[in-house]
Amino acid sequence: MSVTDDRTALIALSVLCEPGNAALAELLAADGPASVLARLLAEPDASPLHQMVAARAQGRDVEGLVAGLVAAGDACGARIVTRYDAEWPEGVDDLAELFDEADPNTKPPLCLWLRGPRDLAEVAASSVSIVGARCCTPYGRNIATRLAYDLGRKQWTVVSGGAYGIDAAAHKGALSADGVTVAVLACGVDRPYPAANAGLFERIAETGLLVSEWPPGAIPQRYRFLVRNRVIAALTRGTVVVEAALRSGARHTARRALELERPLMIVPGPVTSEYSAGVHQLARGPGEVRVVTRAAEVIEDLGRIGADLAPPLCSPDAVRDTLDPLAARLVDAVPARRAASAEHIAAQAGVTVVEARRRLPELAMRGLVAYERDRYRLAGDADA
Amino acid sequence: MSVTDDRTALIALSVLCEPGNAALAELLAADGPASVLARLLAEPDASPLHQMVAARAQGRDVEGLVAGLVAAGDACGARIVTRYDAEWPEGVDDLAELFDEADPNTKPPLCLWLRGPRDLAEVAASSVSIVGARCCTPYGRNIATRLAYDLGRKQWTVVSGGAYGIDAAAHKGALSADGVTVAVLACGVDRPYPAANAGLFERIAETGLLVSEWPPGAIPQRYRFLVRNRVIAALTRGTVVVEAALRSGARHTARRALELERPLMIVPGPVTSEYSAGVHQLARGPGEVRVVTRAAEVIEDLGRIGADLAPPLCSPDAVRDTLDPLAARLVDAVPARRAASAEHIAAQAGVTVVEARRRLPELAMRGLVAYERDRYRLAGDADA
Repeated sequence: MSVTDDRTALIALSVLCEPGNAALAELLAADGPASVLARLLAEPDASPLHQMVAARAQGRDVEGLVAGLVAAGDACGARIVTRYDAEWPEGVDDLAELFDEADPNTKPPLCLWLRGPRDLAEVAASSVSIVGARCCTPYGRNIATRLAYDLGRKQWTVVSGGAYGIDAAAHKGALSADGVTVAVLACGVDRPYPAANAGLFERIAETGLLVSEWPPGAIPQRYRFLVRNRVIAALTRGTVVVEAALRSGARHTARRALELERPLMIVPGPVTSEYSAGVHQLARGPGEVRVVTRAAEVIEDLGRIGADLAPPLCSPDAVRDTLDPLAARLVDAVPARRAASAEHIAAQAGVTVVEARRRLPELAMRGLVAYERDRYRLAGDADA
Repeated sequence: MSVTDDRTALIALSVLCEPGNAALAELLAADGPASVLARLLAEPDASPLHQMVAARAQGRDVEGLVAGLVAAGDACGARIVTRYDAEWPEGVDDLAELFDEADPNTKPPLCLWLRGPRDLAEVAASSVSIVGARCCTPYGRNIATRLAYDLGRKQWTVVSGGAYGIDAAAHKGALSADGVTVAVLACGVDRPYPAANAGLFERIAETGLLVSEWPPGAIPQRYRFLVRNRVIAALTRGTVVVEAALRSGARHTARRALELERPLMIVPGPVTSEYSAGVHQLARGPGEVRVVTRAAEVIEDLGRIGADLAPPLCSPDAVRDTLDPLAARLVDAVPARRAASAEHIAAQAGVTVVEARRRLPELAMRGLVAYERDRYRLAGDADA
């Protein structure tokens, strides 16, 4: 019954204990998985961790247990990835630093089940999560789709949770751009939840990745969504929240992103919408939260400062907008109808006569003022 | 022709030079107004400031000039307030620290013309400016009105610029709450601009204040709006921007608020609206910009931390939301139909049998789980 292979031991531990268990993470930080597993199974101990492992193992053969898990994976086209595999996404190991008094399950995953053609380490390296409310508005859905589409086009992997609403819109947007999208689930990758998104999950499994900490067949118990959220935050370079009511689970993912010191971004909405209320509350802190309105800003905030600065938004310039302040004041002081002297214009504009005499001819040449017999008036289209 | 009274000299200087002039502010920092005025009028000097003052004075008698201004004020029910008057709002003096390479007119006003029954120093002490686009949407107008109404009800003075759109909506909101509102104008207080807001200005003059740096009769030259904006920012404890396109003048006021280190707040809107684009750009910095959605948050951000913290927004709690994490996990693990043993539930929930046996009876007492013959299942309304 003893397991000597560390990778096999990790896989066994991943089902003998709920993911993220802090007590187990502490043991694993000090000792290898095979020896930790052996101790947990052998020594009688009243600790909660020992009890949980014993209750779940029920005296079964561990090698056999893992063989069964591998077979279950094979049956549904899923593979297991651990920190001993090249495909392991290093970002999730940052969860080791996370401590939440109210939640004993915040530590790194022990193994991840994957379904899909992509290399998880590779696609996670330039990934961003887009999360939000299941109940969302057409506004939120459109924004999430558009954002994911634009990010997908720019080779960013869009990660989300596969839920109704914003999650699904984000996955779909990335798929429309032929981008890579990853759904991190709170149940087995063979039975994605919710069932109504089955078609979407199949498309993701064909081109991107379905990811779960739970083995095939695991059902999405409610608290697993919360446990799962830390993986969404840790897997990606940053998190964008699009629409969240005050009690939305997306705010939980957002908090994890902040705890991991990953950029947290929010897409604002009308303050009259309850579906944006949670997002706006996030923006008020605690923590540094960035307001984003488009993919270029998301990319900028993901931290490649310099290389990825968002191009400035501009609106059409009026001719006057191109003037320096002194020239603008002169133009303002030039009468529209009756032409005036340079002295008069200088006094009105609050500039010297010398300055006025020097700049007015230049403004006439630019077509902003008309010059007639040593006097100036506004040209016809100066207000354009 | 010489003026010995400093207050009279300030009033004269305020019309012999455009407001905020940095060169004049420098002289006034070193010497009293009467002596500065005497020097500017007496010494021939090629400096732009001397030239401007000379060009505007045109050799007129300065005592007579001021007498004329006072008479013009009397004729339209306006009074002049300078730093020698009790009503002077001290906040505007912070403009002395402001330096803008592109704008020589950022220094404190020399005098303010007022029309209305309020004491400016008093109402400015708890005031907030609400500014935004002239071209705005019904969304922005409604938000500005509502925000100003709620702030007015809470005894905050609402300051704005009297323009169409957001400005007018803010003034109206405050008036509806029987609050105090102040319009800071870029023209004389006797000829408020735009003329279509004449009715609004009369109501403000009856219950609040019309304020201007320019004497009666002054016309709203375009650059004066920019010069005026610094007074809106400096007069108030903080500035809220509601809707602004990318090139809106409201963003200029916002910049002044940041330069003065006064809280700058933005009300977000749909990212699809060009009228919120300027607001969202502000939120992305530079400078610390707060997202606000309601009056309580504005008041919180105005800096009375502790006393004025916004009450938290809450949504209705489900019974499950009141559970601690361990209890929530137990409830999640309890089967809905077929009752299960405490051991089974403990293993599913990933808690110890001891913990499960200790907590399940309590959950049964709270009506969340049903207990039958040493086994537990979900109570009928546990999912409520």
